[in-house]
Amino acid sequence: MAHELLREAVCEANLDIVRAGLVKLTWGNVSGADRQAAVMAIKPSGVPYAELCAEDMVLVSLKSGEVVDGKYRPSSDTPTHLYLYRHFEHVGGIAHSHSEYAVSWAQAERALPCLGTTHADHFRGSIPVTRRMREDEIRGAYERNTGRVIVECFRAGGISPSDVPAVLVARHGPFTWGETAQAAARNAIALECVARMALYTRAISPEVQPMGSELQDKHFMRKHGADAYYGQSEPGHASGA
Amino acid sequence: MAHELLREAVCEANLDIVRAGLVKLTWGNVSGADRQAAVMAIKPSGVPYAELCAEDMVLVSLKSGEVVDGKYRPSSDTPTHLYLYRHFEHVGGIAHSHSEYAVSWAQAERALPCLGTTHADHFRGSIPVTRRMREDEIRGAYERNTGRVIVECFRAGGISPSDVPAVLVARHGPFTWGETAQAAARNAIALECVARMALYTRAISPEVQPMGSELQDKHFMRKHGADAYYGQSEPGHASGA
Amino acid sequence: MAHELLREAVCEANLDIVRAGLVKLTWGNVSGADRQAAVMAIKPSGVPYAELCAEDMVLVSLKSGEVVDGKYRPSSDTPTHLYLYRHFEHVGGIAHSHSEYAVSWAQAERALPCLGTTHADHFRGSIPVTRRMREDEIRGAYERNTGRVIVECFRAGGISPSDVPAVLVARHGPFTWGETAQAAARNAIALECVARMALYTRAISPEVQPMGSELQDKHFMRKHGADAYYGQSEPGHASGA
Amino acid sequence: MAHELLREAVCEANLDIVRAGLVKLTWGNVSGADRQAAVMAIKPSGVPYAELCAEDMVLVSLKSGEVVDGKYRPSSDTPTHLYLYRHFEHVGGIAHSHSEYAVSWAQAERALPCLGTTHADHFRGSIPVTRRMREDEIRGAYERNTGRVIVECFRAGGISPSDVPAVLVARHGPFTWGETAQAAARNAIALECVARMALYTRAISPEVQPMGSELQDKHFMRKHGADAYYGQSEPGHASGA
Repeated sequence: MAHELLREAVCEANLDIVRAGLVKLTWGNVSGADRQAAVMAIKPSGVPYAELCAEDMVLVSLKSGEVVDGKYRPSSDTPTHLYLYRHFEHVGGIAHSHSEYAVSWAQAERALPCLGTTHADHFRGSIPVTRRMREDEIRGAYERNTGRVIVECFRAGGISPSDVPAVLVARHGPFTWGETAQAAARNAIALECVARMALYTRAISPEVQPMGSELQDKHFMRKHGADAYYGQSEPGHASGA
Repeated sequence: MAHELLREAVCEANLDIVRAGLVKLTWGNVSGADRQAAVMAIKPSGVPYAELCAEDMVLVSLKSGEVVDGKYRPSSDTPTHLYLYRHFEHVGGIAHSHSEYAVSWAQAERALPCLGTTHADHFRGSIPVTRRMREDEIRGAYERNTGRVIVECFRAGGISPSDVPAVLVARHGPFTWGETAQAAARNAIALECVARMALYTRAISPEVQPMGSELQDKHFMRKHGADAYYGQSEPGHASGA
Repeated sequence: MAHELLREAVCEANLDIVRAGLVKLTWGNVSGADRQAAVMAIKPSGVPYAELCAEDMVLVSLKSGEVVDGKYRPSSDTPTHLYLYRHFEHVGGIAHSHSEYAVSWAQAERALPCLGTTHADHFRGSIPVTRRMREDEIRGAYERNTGRVIVECFRAGGISPSDVPAVLVARHGPFTWGETAQAAARNAIALECVARMALYTRAISPEVQPMGSELQDKHFMRKHGADAYYGQSEPGHASGA
Repeated sequence: MAHELLREAVCEANLDIVRAGLVKLTWGNVSGADRQAAVMAIKPSGVPYAELCAEDMVLVSLKSGEVVDGKYRPSSDTPTHLYLYRHFEHVGGIAHSHSEYAVSWAQAERALPCLGTTHADHFRGSIPVTRRMREDEIRGAYERNTGRVIVECFRAGGISPSDVPAVLVARHGPFTWGETAQAAARNAIALECVARMALYTRAISPEVQPMGSELQDKHFMRKHGADAYYGQSEPGHASGA
């Protein structure tokens, strides 16, 4: 099986978002890219998750968009994934779901503000919402154009896709990404959680404002900067004294 | 066992809505029809789901409404199912549940607006809510009259039951349908999800309006029209370039 | 083991409310009575549900309130159960939980209005909320006095405990009852569900009014009156024509 | 394995909050202290819960803050735990989670009022929220300073950490504690539940006020005072007559 490890990782990441409760029916799709080979593996369209296995993942060329290997038709959102890989060069995995709270913010066409450290641990600042697509964009290459409005949203807003690995597509739902398919799935889980908590927080305090930038930076850099000290990447010692 | 495959499919569809969390206690019922044989199979009344098996499904004549085969009494909502099969000719399966968010819209007597693509993927436009039943309709053949107000709602509103395979019965709850029992169950799951997200969306943005019709049409036709390209029904290739 | 069947039924009913998600930690308790023997079996106080078995149920005399048999101390809410058995003569089982939505209505000190048929299927009219307990009632025989305010609430309001097998104790939470421990547990599950849906319904339509009495009566009598036709108690036939 | 029983208890308490649904991804951490040996065991940083076992727990000196034993780096929140053990002398276990409702109150920077007996059973009065941390506190020893603002909050408010074994750190989330790691986890579960119910209660009745102090005291003392009568610590008898 070509690109066996990539397919296994992508299959597992698809199941990660199912296990986390982000998926109903056959909705959602996760892909992962091998940049050197210029291919991505992506979930097939409309196949039940209960039966999903690594060899069902469809290999698609990042250059031509053609299916390279696979017995199924790839996700109907494939052109969106391709567009993002082509324009966000550091991205190695992409997840799309219809998780309920992130979708609700997307349906409300509201950016998701950073209200606490859980958000700041994963996303630096607000999660942006795209503009609505025009009629010609909807009638034309719709899925590709979905990628275009996402990239436009980040470029126009001066937002780094590494700092904010997530977007809300207006009236549709979230896309998240990361260095791998697994990281993209993890960000989808974190996004749904902060989307839920933002709704609750506003119910408790309708006038709540975003968290101060100092605390936002601190939490993001704990996990992401050159001096990150969360996790097990360096030998452990407590600095608690 | 007569109509064994139909009974198995209907039993499985009943369990689908249980597994999806749409069911409490013994509430809810799914039926499936064999139009050629003019029978439907339906869940028995008040039997615990944990013990449900294919042979428990009750076969009822679509013409006479009499039980054709089965050891149990059919669901008390049987006359509603029969009325819908008789008046919505393309329907092959019907699901009724007391799923909490769909019921809440029904209790509020509000049509469920199309606020995003998840809704548009399954339902073309708002999910209508029936008028209240009159005292004579309640006192008389209540379950049959429930079917009558549903059909009246679609006829009076000029709504196609194929475009909108769901209704909210005022103060009661949802009925969904489809070509098969499984499709009806799937629409019940999708309906509960969009009912939930519509509530959240309005909490985030109380003034939210329905999604533009262009995007509604696009998503419905991706999955339902002659040019549908979601799923695996035709040989796969990526159109992403 | 004395009263083995009763203990088994009561143990199972305690586990029913756990399986239905109504219980956190060791909260909640269900009892069942044998009226002829004038005893009840009740969950022991503070014992983890994962370890609960029939022989752990404590037998308590309905007359003296003394423990008749059992190795554990009975639930601290035992005096409330006893008071209800003594004053609601047709009750054979009682359930108390801290299920979150029913508790929230109790904390808000609001009666739970009948907004739809799910409610009417189980409860005839609003679920009442008790008055607050006075300081002397709290300082005195608190659990017994909890029973007193429940009975007072039904007597003063002219409510039949058979028509409305549930109450919200102000600032505390729900008690439900029925002919058996299992029926009491089932009403606890139904109550939590309608409490949840009433909150959602008001979020969708803040001005919602109770459902018309005609439809309330119809649904309650479908399941409870002399002419009840839900379930399998009589030989089945479809009345759908 | 040094301190094997402590490590096992702490591992189990970490899994308790996972099983109770308080945890997403690798978030959260529970510790337990052996006061005589002046060490605590704490969850390692960023290790998946599915793989967690007792020997993964990291032993840290309560005095020096140095790792005494363990193959992993301890939780990045270790300095907060250490600060709390040093200043709250009766505490034997600490739990930190990002449970969604408690976090939402923390993000709203609102103290969690005592609205009912479920709250009063575990916490005597409101759960306080800390002040925001200053820029120098965030830039400096951030995790240690998190402990400082918690202790300051209790001292300034004249609150006993035994009466209120929980705090909401502004914009961050909850810390709970108890005599053991398991008790701390139990309080985390109770806190999340009362945080959820407080939100629902306010949705039902926006003007709701805290419960009367008489009933608060009664419930807290049922479980915690010298005359506590909940659970199995003394020989059982019913006082229901």
